Amino acid sequence: MDRELLEILFRRAVMAAEPKAAIGAAIAAHLPSRPTGRTLVIGAGKASARMAKAFEELWPYPIDDSLVVTRYGYGAACARIEIVEAAHPVPDLAGYLAARRMLEKVRGLGPNDLVVALISGGGSALLPQPAPGLSFEDEVRVNEALLASGAPISVMNLIRNELSAIKGGRLAAAAAPAKLVTLVVSDVPGDDPALVASGPTVPIGSHRAEARNLVGLYGIILPAAAAAFLQEDDNPSPTAADPVFAGNRVAIVASASLSLGAAAAEAEGHGIAAAILSDAIEGEAREVAKVHAALAREVRQRHRPFAPPHLLLSGGETSVTLRGTGKGGRNSEFLLAFAIAIDGIDGITALAADTDGIDGAGDNAGAFADGTTARRMRSRGIDPRMALANNDAYPAFEKIGDLFVTGPTGTNVNDFRAILVR
Amino acid sequence: MDRELLEILFRRAVMAAEPKAAIGAAIAAHLPSRPTGRTLVIGAGKASARMAKAFEELWPYPIDDSLVVTRYGYGAACARIEIVEAAHPVPDLAGYLAARRMLEKVRGLGPNDLVVALISGGGSALLPQPAPGLSFEDEVRVNEALLASGAPISVMNLIRNELSAIKGGRLAAAAAPAKLVTLVVSDVPGDDPALVASGPTVPIGSHRAEARNLVGLYGIILPAAAAAFLQEDDNPSPTAADPVFAGNRVAIVASASLSLGAAAAEAEGHGIAAAILSDAIEGEAREVAKVHAALAREVRQRHRPFAPPHLLLSGGETSVTLRGTGKGGRNSEFLLAFAIAIDGIDGITALAADTDGIDGAGDNAGAFADGTTARRMRSRGIDPRMALANNDAYPAFEKIGDLFVTGPTGTNVNDFRAILVR
Repeated sequence: MDRELLEILFRRAVMAAEPKAAIGAAIAAHLPSRPTGRTLVIGAGKASARMAKAFEELWPYPIDDSLVVTRYGYGAACARIEIVEAAHPVPDLAGYLAARRMLEKVRGLGPNDLVVALISGGGSALLPQPAPGLSFEDEVRVNEALLASGAPISVMNLIRNELSAIKGGRLAAAAAPAKLVTLVVSDVPGDDPALVASGPTVPIGSHRAEARNLVGLYGIILPAAAAAFLQEDDNPSPTAADPVFAGNRVAIVASASLSLGAAAAEAEGHGIAAAILSDAIEGEAREVAKVHAALAREVRQRHRPFAPPHLLLSGGETSVTLRGTGKGGRNSEFLLAFAIAIDGIDGITALAADTDGIDGAGDNAGAFADGTTARRMRSRGIDPRMALANNDAYPAFEKIGDLFVTGPTGTNVNDFRAILVR
Repeated sequence: MDRELLEILFRRAVMAAEPKAAIGAAIAAHLPSRPTGRTLVIGAGKASARMAKAFEELWPYPIDDSLVVTRYGYGAACARIEIVEAAHPVPDLAGYLAARRMLEKVRGLGPNDLVVALISGGGSALLPQPAPGLSFEDEVRVNEALLASGAPISVMNLIRNELSAIKGGRLAAAAAPAKLVTLVVSDVPGDDPALVASGPTVPIGSHRAEARNLVGLYGIILPAAAAAFLQEDDNPSPTAADPVFAGNRVAIVASASLSLGAAAAEAEGHGIAAAILSDAIEGEAREVAKVHAALAREVRQRHRPFAPPHLLLSGGETSVTLRGTGKGGRNSEFLLAFAIAIDGIDGITALAADTDGIDGAGDNAGAFADGTTARRMRSRGIDPRMALANNDAYPAFEKIGDLFVTGPTGTNVNDFRAILVR
């Protein structure tokens, strides 16, 4: 019963991130009816080719001279939109040339034209375009220096934006006065659209002085041309307050958070209150599992911080440090550690799975676990602790018939964890 | 401001676990006025000598021939109660002889006599006493086999209880018909008094058949005499339903959970709602920190699963796998990883500290962290990621003046973590 419900929640979460469903809903909610002028589709990111394919299949009107950039291997066969593949996370010339073409395409549009920007994670590296006076090589070196600095993503973005001819809303400035609608598949905690792909269509204003301070604070060694550019206040980034952007719209159409929200709403429809702990949990899977287990036990045994029955939801992307030679992805490893930590406790049922349908290199999306999991493994001759020590979660769950298999889902908003506590 | 509040919450949590305060409150709430017969104090556990000292200082009436066992090095100078030190976690003869004397002391008491049992974590190993027909060496070997089996604590306890002459309420049976009041400092999740020190004064009934099954299920190799004893149904454990126990009382006087509850109540008095995530979080400190940080960000940025301002509280005992040569305890390591994970985010302030006042080998109880911590470390020439990689949290927090120093508190309910999200 509880497993069935958890499986429904997973499917609901995946459905919320499915490109066609997400883009279809966004077209209905955020796009104007047939524009009198031209319609250009642009965009960049790891999910943007899938977004483009969904868009061109659903958009009933003509699509003009369009261009979307995605990562090598992430392309989709589109009929009406040109898809270019480029390098990520270190930019290459293919991305540079595509970015230049994209800027050229949107320049000179009029107020009756419509630009649809399909933006997703990774789009920053896929659209390199240095500020005036900087070479492509300077931009690559800036990016390397930022990645090596250990600075948080917000700091890297702020500096990148100042040194770019396309990020931080500059693509939007090029497209004005056309109406610009940005649809975003978000991979950033908080779903701030200015942070997805460094927000090429989201004007955030200039932060040159702050960028100078941060470069010093984080000890970032910039190429000479970039350092010199930062010392001037020329070429400021556009600001959202500029009336030329007044008709623009930005909408998050899919994200881990939206998917978890869809699962939470579904659970509540089944009479189960849900808590979304976070859409962006990182860390070693087995350790993250211990914290989830401690929280589930607290709910089960002390009815706090949530009164059972209650659903605990979380997303993000855990990692696995390989210690052994076994088989299993991060979600089955999470669940094996979770099962050990709730061994013998009833009333707790968990599903952890990758929303893309493939947990690591296995054929499963994830697995189920509860307080009987460890005991059932032992009765089949498997020592759960030994299996965990050997990173061998897959066979352990396989042997007790508790793998969760869906096949590839065609979308990806990272991990999905749902723990139902009765 | 927020740091002051967090410090008050820590002090409130420690106060709730301070032996004298806890025992004093328990005497008022749970002990009868002056007994007409004798008063014997018994007990075992790592905190039991401190409990005994507090008890004899606060108890206004005579104390008769009393005996409390604690771990080597955990003694306290008592005037009216004999303190014996013994081995933990592997029992030794000192514990065996003390357990035998304790059983002898309580046998033959009458209905007007009072027995006060001061029970705390570790008391199970400190009171070895094998069932009839088993030797002390058998019991030691049983214990070793259980610890090696990977069975959960509940399973180990159930088997131990069947093979003991003192656990699982048998000490209470020996003391009947005297009135028995058990005061417990709990170190087990859920604070079930039958699980603290294997509940020598808490009758739970016999589970011989279940013990036989579990020995098989977990593949535990018992000494021959122990295996033979388990096959019989002789010498069943006492059950709580026996009317001879009707006048007995059991009270948890201190625990991580009670301390967190006290901190939560204090916060609510300051107008801040509090969520106790768990009193028993285990795992690698830096990974546990990432999960706490993700949850704090979720509250800060999305106002879920709790609406800010909100306090997140957790307890338990994290661990640190040494990778480098630096200095720092598990709480400062937790906070350094936490600071990196919330770098640049405002509105989050955290305190993590050991309730005994000493975080690892340092002179600090813990430290404070917020979204400016990593930046301030950098501006003092410390790279937070490098410091974390080198297990070098102490100097990093020292350099920015954010260590939290209390000195030894005289009590211990493990870690205290409080995260205030505005």
